[in-house]
Amino acid sequence: MELLTVGTVAFDDITTPFGRAEKVVGGAGLYSAIAASYFTGPVNLVSIIGGDWPKEELNALEERGIDTDGIEVVEDGKSFFWAGKYHDDMNGRDTLATELNVLADFNPVLPEHFKDSKYVLLGNLTPEVQAKVLDQMEDTTLVVLDTMNFWMDVALDALKKVIARVDVITINDEEARQLSGEYSLVKAAEKILTMGPKYLIIKKGEHGALLFGEGQMFFAPALPLAEVKDPTGAGDSFAGGFLGYIAKTGDISFDNMKRAIIHGSAMASFCVEDFSIERVKGLSDLEINERLETFKKLSHYEL
Amino acid sequence: MELLTVGTVAFDDITTPFGRAEKVVGGAGLYSAIAASYFTGPVNLVSIIGGDWPKEELNALEERGIDTDGIEVVEDGKSFFWAGKYHDDMNGRDTLATELNVLADFNPVLPEHFKDSKYVLLGNLTPEVQAKVLDQMEDTTLVVLDTMNFWMDVALDALKKVIARVDVITINDEEARQLSGEYSLVKAAEKILTMGPKYLIIKKGEHGALLFGEGQMFFAPALPLAEVKDPTGAGDSFAGGFLGYIAKTGDISFDNMKRAIIHGSAMASFCVEDFSIERVKGLSDLEINERLETFKKLSHYEL
Repeated sequence: MELLTVGTVAFDDITTPFGRAEKVVGGAGLYSAIAASYFTGPVNLVSIIGGDWPKEELNALEERGIDTDGIEVVEDGKSFFWAGKYHDDMNGRDTLATELNVLADFNPVLPEHFKDSKYVLLGNLTPEVQAKVLDQMEDTTLVVLDTMNFWMDVALDALKKVIARVDVITINDEEARQLSGEYSLVKAAEKILTMGPKYLIIKKGEHGALLFGEGQMFFAPALPLAEVKDPTGAGDSFAGGFLGYIAKTGDISFDNMKRAIIHGSAMASFCVEDFSIERVKGLSDLEINERLETFKKLSHYEL
Repeated sequence: MELLTVGTVAFDDITTPFGRAEKVVGGAGLYSAIAASYFTGPVNLVSIIGGDWPKEELNALEERGIDTDGIEVVEDGKSFFWAGKYHDDMNGRDTLATELNVLADFNPVLPEHFKDSKYVLLGNLTPEVQAKVLDQMEDTTLVVLDTMNFWMDVALDALKKVIARVDVITINDEEARQLSGEYSLVKAAEKILTMGPKYLIIKKGEHGALLFGEGQMFFAPALPLAEVKDPTGAGDSFAGGFLGYIAKTGDISFDNMKRAIIHGSAMASFCVEDFSIERVKGLSDLEINERLETFKKLSHYEL
């Protein structure tokens, strides 16, 4: 089934204890679309780029079943740019530069053939832009919203309005605490699920992810890795893999969401193994299936 | 099968955002013995207390199948005392007071009938005391060592000597990093498993626990709870439940260790629901089995 994802397509400058990647392609829209494309197609990508974003990368997206008709190209503009440096422990990071560039005027207008996408991922953008995309959708089956603490700080009312319109919200543990005012994640989930969404996914980075909904709770571990080269894009790869699997199966039951979270976690585990999209762009089905088996071995047992 | 545990039997003064418990019974030996006693018996407890430790609590231990013959009572001495205050997030804590009292002169001499215990838990004590207990054991099946960063700071050589003699070591993630000099827990585990133990359990508190050994890796989540009243003793309840289940089953395969870790996690999840031993001292088999089922639902899925 058709999946639509909206998010940044950008340049990143990333420094980690393992090295540096200068002006590499990145962005939530890019990572999520690539991850989803392993499971479903077409993946309708909505974004905005400058004339500086490489045309061959756009072609590469088309070749993998990602429809780029929804990417507005501002030929005389510059793409969104983010520079960051990860701490030695790879958990914390400092933002060194954020240049909005063409993103400052992003007013997404969906191509007609995008509007009947059933599965929608609203990547981390201003709540107004997320709402504008939703306004153009016809009859969705599942809408997933990703957001962050920044929007809770500066645009809480607008954020709450869009939260009320979606089915699934994905945030990290600190954001869940901020949004709910509750420290316990169980209590935070109870509160957030009264705000509109039927499901809440709390991402805990290297500590895994929690799914709440239908009075149930599910925990998926992150895969402990010997080497994490670059955490950038892990959350977006997670979201793309999650929704891509749901779109593939067309099943939005809690049990299938569990499987979807494992698929998302698998994509995130690949993402962090190399800089930029290097690792996630060229996976084989065999690699993905082996990774899924590794996840199953990691947490399964018989009582 | 007989299980021996050595660790403090003490008084705690605990302040958390939910309240305060003054001069309540506590200590690693106490928590681990109680947790283990649900699965196996007799549980041979080795410790030292002052004349101030309540006799009725000793009787209560005996009634639940904990043999207290190995608890030295210094009638004119005072029991070990710890006072701590947990931060609002319940993860961090400040130690307000540590009074060693009779623990300062702890020189464990095992009763004859303790020496053939097959399953041994060396609770967090000086490495010298842990070694002294091991010296008195006859033919063990599985020895588990718990320790902490303090001993890595002040007695690393002695600690390494005792680590080399045990089968399983349980430490937290920061301690695993300190002991190995590796940030990645996968690499840390590889290094620590060259120091002697066949298995390593890395406790991550609210983020669960990892088991490494035999070239395999297993992750057990902690149970997300609406309310954590007092985290004191959770790690000790975990260790006691873990080894108690292994002693009950007499099976030290990796697959059974997975089950044991879930049993340990279940006991830890009860422990934090109330102050001191209030919750863990009176569990029914039904409650424990239901909790185990809750754990299974939390992490299981079909691919």
